[in-house]
Amino acid sequence: MAPAGTQRGILERLDAGEIVVGDGGFVFALEKRGYVKAGPWTPEAAAEHPEAVRQLHREFLRAGSNVMQTFTFYASDDKLENRGNALSFTGQQINEAACDLAREVANEGDALVAGGVSQTPSYLSCKSENDVKDIFKKQIDVFIKKNVDFLIAEYFEHVEEAEWAVQVLKTSGKPVAATMCIGPTGDMHGVTPGDCAVRLVKAGADIVGVNCHFDPLTCVKTVKLMKEGVEKAGLKAHYMVQPLAYHTPDCNCQGFIDLPEFPFALEPRILTRWDMQKYAREAYNAGIRYIGGCCGFEPYHIRAVSEELSQERGLLPAASEKHGLWASELKMHTKPWVRARARRDYWETIKPASGRPQCPSMSVPDSWGVTKGHAELMQQKEATTQEQLQPLFEKTVKTNGI
Amino acid sequence: MAPAGTQRGILERLDAGEIVVGDGGFVFALEKRGYVKAGPWTPEAAAEHPEAVRQLHREFLRAGSNVMQTFTFYASDDKLENRGNALSFTGQQINEAACDLAREVANEGDALVAGGVSQTPSYLSCKSENDVKDIFKKQIDVFIKKNVDFLIAEYFEHVEEAEWAVQVLKTSGKPVAATMCIGPTGDMHGVTPGDCAVRLVKAGADIVGVNCHFDPLTCVKTVKLMKEGVEKAGLKAHYMVQPLAYHTPDCNCQGFIDLPEFPFALEPRILTRWDMQKYAREAYNAGIRYIGGCCGFEPYHIRAVSEELSQERGLLPAASEKHGLWASELKMHTKPWVRARARRDYWETIKPASGRPQCPSMSVPDSWGVTKGHAELMQQKEATTQEQLQPLFEKTVKTNGI
Amino acid sequence: MAPAGTQRGILERLDAGEIVVGDGGFVFALEKRGYVKAGPWTPEAAAEHPEAVRQLHREFLRAGSNVMQTFTFYASDDKLENRGNALSFTGQQINEAACDLAREVANEGDALVAGGVSQTPSYLSCKSENDVKDIFKKQIDVFIKKNVDFLIAEYFEHVEEAEWAVQVLKTSGKPVAATMCIGPTGDMHGVTPGDCAVRLVKAGADIVGVNCHFDPLTCVKTVKLMKEGVEKAGLKAHYMVQPLAYHTPDCNCQGFIDLPEFPFALEPRILTRWDMQKYAREAYNAGIRYIGGCCGFEPYHIRAVSEELSQERGLLPAASEKHGLWASELKMHTKPWVRARARRDYWETIKPASGRPQCPSMSVPDSWGVTKGHAELMQQKEATTQEQLQPLFEKTVKTNGI
Amino acid sequence: MAPAGTQRGILERLDAGEIVVGDGGFVFALEKRGYVKAGPWTPEAAAEHPEAVRQLHREFLRAGSNVMQTFTFYASDDKLENRGNALSFTGQQINEAACDLAREVANEGDALVAGGVSQTPSYLSCKSENDVKDIFKKQIDVFIKKNVDFLIAEYFEHVEEAEWAVQVLKTSGKPVAATMCIGPTGDMHGVTPGDCAVRLVKAGADIVGVNCHFDPLTCVKTVKLMKEGVEKAGLKAHYMVQPLAYHTPDCNCQGFIDLPEFPFALEPRILTRWDMQKYAREAYNAGIRYIGGCCGFEPYHIRAVSEELSQERGLLPAASEKHGLWASELKMHTKPWVRARARRDYWETIKPASGRPQCPSMSVPDSWGVTKGHAELMQQKEATTQEQLQPLFEKTVKTNGI
Repeated sequence: MAPAGTQRGILERLDAGEIVVGDGGFVFALEKRGYVKAGPWTPEAAAEHPEAVRQLHREFLRAGSNVMQTFTFYASDDKLENRGNALSFTGQQINEAACDLAREVANEGDALVAGGVSQTPSYLSCKSENDVKDIFKKQIDVFIKKNVDFLIAEYFEHVEEAEWAVQVLKTSGKPVAATMCIGPTGDMHGVTPGDCAVRLVKAGADIVGVNCHFDPLTCVKTVKLMKEGVEKAGLKAHYMVQPLAYHTPDCNCQGFIDLPEFPFALEPRILTRWDMQKYAREAYNAGIRYIGGCCGFEPYHIRAVSEELSQERGLLPAASEKHGLWASELKMHTKPWVRARARRDYWETIKPASGRPQCPSMSVPDSWGVTKGHAELMQQKEATTQEQLQPLFEKTVKTNGI
Repeated sequence: MAPAGTQRGILERLDAGEIVVGDGGFVFALEKRGYVKAGPWTPEAAAEHPEAVRQLHREFLRAGSNVMQTFTFYASDDKLENRGNALSFTGQQINEAACDLAREVANEGDALVAGGVSQTPSYLSCKSENDVKDIFKKQIDVFIKKNVDFLIAEYFEHVEEAEWAVQVLKTSGKPVAATMCIGPTGDMHGVTPGDCAVRLVKAGADIVGVNCHFDPLTCVKTVKLMKEGVEKAGLKAHYMVQPLAYHTPDCNCQGFIDLPEFPFALEPRILTRWDMQKYAREAYNAGIRYIGGCCGFEPYHIRAVSEELSQERGLLPAASEKHGLWASELKMHTKPWVRARARRDYWETIKPASGRPQCPSMSVPDSWGVTKGHAELMQQKEATTQEQLQPLFEKTVKTNGI
Repeated sequence: MAPAGTQRGILERLDAGEIVVGDGGFVFALEKRGYVKAGPWTPEAAAEHPEAVRQLHREFLRAGSNVMQTFTFYASDDKLENRGNALSFTGQQINEAACDLAREVANEGDALVAGGVSQTPSYLSCKSENDVKDIFKKQIDVFIKKNVDFLIAEYFEHVEEAEWAVQVLKTSGKPVAATMCIGPTGDMHGVTPGDCAVRLVKAGADIVGVNCHFDPLTCVKTVKLMKEGVEKAGLKAHYMVQPLAYHTPDCNCQGFIDLPEFPFALEPRILTRWDMQKYAREAYNAGIRYIGGCCGFEPYHIRAVSEELSQERGLLPAASEKHGLWASELKMHTKPWVRARARRDYWETIKPASGRPQCPSMSVPDSWGVTKGHAELMQQKEATTQEQLQPLFEKTVKTNGI
Repeated sequence: MAPAGTQRGILERLDAGEIVVGDGGFVFALEKRGYVKAGPWTPEAAAEHPEAVRQLHREFLRAGSNVMQTFTFYASDDKLENRGNALSFTGQQINEAACDLAREVANEGDALVAGGVSQTPSYLSCKSENDVKDIFKKQIDVFIKKNVDFLIAEYFEHVEEAEWAVQVLKTSGKPVAATMCIGPTGDMHGVTPGDCAVRLVKAGADIVGVNCHFDPLTCVKTVKLMKEGVEKAGLKAHYMVQPLAYHTPDCNCQGFIDLPEFPFALEPRILTRWDMQKYAREAYNAGIRYIGGCCGFEPYHIRAVSEELSQERGLLPAASEKHGLWASELKMHTKPWVRARARRDYWETIKPASGRPQCPSMSVPDSWGVTKGHAELMQQKEATTQEQLQPLFEKTVKTNGI
């Protein structure tokens, strides 16, 4: 097993034209396993329940991930203490624990460790550039101390905040990736994907792309727009995509947050492994080489990405010992009509039923149009009160007629 | 932490009118995590990757499970070597490892260990009663050696085989539960749920019910029919239900195996946590007191069962530290329109969209009508050949017009 | 053109094993054309707008109908003046006009005239047997005077009222058909289809079956149950089916009246011509020989029935001059991809999309369980008041959460 | 009743800001009634079965139409004899009969007669401008002889052909309307709606808009784009919309022709009367004043348009004698739960179920991309042969996997 640092770096790999398979999102997966709270979505489990976080890292590694992303999403100090989120660990403790876990598992295979930062309440609350950058700086200090292999600034809705993050990350001297949680219409202020990408590259990002908020094919489309923008500007970059594992054809610019099913009724939208194989192929064909996942991804989704690209990568992931290509393992099923499903064309064309005849296939997203600077988005240490909730409840009832 | 044996037994609890929360199915959950192969569905991971099995046990324990079922589904010797399923562990090794893992985690909380056996290829291949019973006997020997707290005969499609299993399990002197994977129309030979239950009770089962193959509300309905049968016969039993976590309104008598989506495109059918709360309430109202899950259940589904019945049980599960009742944790979300969803009526009435406008809501199940004794169901050590597959492929194409 | 009376009678045809194609429902078709009011559903258009009624008769005749049913549905005196339905024609005028129109068009082809009566408000209001029979008697008097070819008692929810109707119709000496608007679970008091049919045959009906309230395949299933009942009782009858042209998989015992979409949002449920061909074949295979339609049927639906059975009948309907079998006329389309649809297998297997991604595929029917004798069903001459409506509105809101 | 010519003209009405309600499409409505053949879609019924055409005119008049469009769609000589469409009437006879019928019914109320021409096979076959114009000229000659009130050039996919049509129509000295069957992405060569509209106005059209091919809200959106284009160009025009009565969210640029359900399985997409009221309001709010319908419209759809705009127009249509505003006539229904639906909010928010759980909500349109000049679109007098069909069948199978 390779000790830290002996692995080939992220840019070496991408420069050589290799495919880098990312991991999946931890907050959703660990919420279902019982270790993350959905409202704040903070990653204190890294310190509280390391065995659960370690196991999830391992499963992604087995599924073929080349990157163990530190479980530090929303681990900025301002986010950790938002709206009454009382934690018994400090931000530094959480960030350090997350780095240790990622490194431990990365060293069990051919994986790099990436330290991650994400959007901050401070930015939404209109804090100054310096204040916001200080928030990022604290996390970077841990990443440098723990010597991660590269850095990711992810889940930014406003390109300005993403630029600030990249500028801070660049001070580390490590390779920097930057992904925004935007769709084809661009960021919350209407900056197009192409323009966002150009600004991020100019700020110093080596790899640009999108993560979260939209389904895989929408994300691939958005990264294509980014690539076109970067190329038109005469710049160079690597491209990356880490989408949702949920179908979101009905989203508007703010993505799945606006869907009425977010976050506790998204089940019918979960992608199958076959959907994932299509995604991996589309992403590859679009020239994207860092291909991973975000919320909703389970290890088998990443395995599907790895299997689809196994010819190009020249290897199958460890977890394929328990999976045949295109369902060939069904040949071993006891029932003959299930053995009859052991073939590619069956699964490649299936249109899976929802089993929910009283439910629609698309929703109408909430569209409150609230973004940076709105009073309702302000950072607040104290728990949300019933008085604060009441007008929100009423607003929904009026809008949706529920 | 209580040592083995000091816990109050399963019958003590049920006789006292307590609710016993079961765990969820391991084969589907571990298939998604990369440790179980879908065709054979055998549990060698207990020996190969104990850390993964242990972690899943822990998650169910945290979610409120009072029973750690040994991961011994399909761990009979005849099933372990079916159709070329080459394993590097013996049946005994797998069964022993599974018992150790279940006991280790059960002792971390208030849980009992249940040793489980399930339907055998030997029965489908028309082996004699003695041969089939010998198969069960081998697993029981391990369960006795490892001193599990009680035994479960589960996933039987034919009441005759279930009776044989119960008769063998009874020789252990331990409490015996028996669940069939049938729906309201009864077993594969048309024996009604009521008659099945009566025969199982007469064979010695203390607890009867159903598991797998159908969605929660269908399973509750089937157990109600069992209860009516048992009561009409003047007998007594406890009742148990461990359904799928998939909506299956379109199933026929053989359950989800017949659905075209089985097993790799069931995602759109996954129940939400709110669906689970309805299920737990319905099961409770039907007089069922052993309430758990089977394929498709993830830890958060069991947590939802535990939360729905928290008043009756007088406690919340450990994992509720990361979950508010009826989405109250969304009060801590940054976005106001998501905070507006922090209320029961929102989630109780939601009709979640599938995000798949080109897919239907119901499928037409395969209905090959093949059961015990059919040539295509015979036990076969060698791998299925391409020559064997071809006629099956052709049959499907003709039937489905695909 | 044959003068009245020279046609071979309905029983001659059925006794000879011939297929009799019925017509479609007039109230729904004429509501869409602007001549029938949906709440009362009364047939005053026969007197007010004879050209519209005549044209619809002609279209069904062209489509292959062998029966012109008088447009006398709900034309009993008690129904004509219910809840403020102020009409400028008497019941006798309407019934006579309807007979004249049916005869005029029947004589343009090979069709018989059937005089029809249907359920009465008097029965629902618990009037005496004599009172209810007097109501039917008034319509029969017109049918005798106008010398229709046979009589139909249709759309009965309670077998008792249907028996009374048959008894009155039999006094005419003409052949009598009787159809109830029930599904497989039987009439509003739970009398099974088999028992209903036996009672109707014993009351004197020559032809029995069902009409309205359920979709074609459900109706065929119900008539099968009737046939089994009649045969088991050692009786003889001919069988008849006149279903809805709406898919109603989600109905309970009271049929489409209970569906939330009734009557003004049923569009997505309308059967295609291909659905109709399946229906005609199923009905024929079930031994039903009088095959027609009810609410929702348009002339092209009846043409589809006629085309499906054209081999057995030995003729194509007149309207097939404008229609090819299995879409062969699409060979003449300008666009090649539409010409590519000129084939049977294309249309036989199509699963047509709703174009409504925000709508479900099934509804939850209202189930107020209100039937004969309930105060809310009482006959009332005066218009419904706002005071009477208010509690009904509130009841719905409470039930549906709308 | 007003004699021909004494009515206020179309431009007088529009200049005065009045709403003009159009009629619905005749070919689809009469196909269902048995008088039009779907492949060729030609209007010979005007001569063959005048009573059927007259009745449909009357129903639209009763529903509130201010325009009786002559039933001359596809009545150009080249189209009448395409691909073996053997007719016993000449083009002139059909066009004249259609004019007479429209005038007869128009004079029964407050309606104008509009002579209509539409796209020609000659244009698709790359005939010269003169040849195409000669085709139009023949129909105009009849319209002038029969003294229609104004002219409509409709259903053009290529703006060039529409311009030619307008130029010919202008020679009559009568007001000219021009509508294309395009969506928001413009004509078959990508000319935007705004540019199309500008060219049509410059060619002499007084009224511009779209008809057919897309659902109402898409058509309103397209006309908005036309209006913006015309206004940006500093020109003036009136605006007109005559959409489908089918929901088509899944269409691409060629509209519903490309949908797999075209033309014989569109039923689930039919708009309700409530959908139509939304459409009428949207069209009105967009500044469109000539508001009618095309394929799929039945008289009750036009009545819904008239009822929605009854305040603005100051009148209700005749057919509203059989319809209450917002379902108020349901107050007269016998069943109390149906009376409970006699209110606006019930119908305004209903999400009607399809009753088809095995069908999707959206389809994938065919996209052969075949347009003007392609060999497969060439005019051909002889019937399509089986040899010509075979490659088309094969192409579909390959594309759709059916």
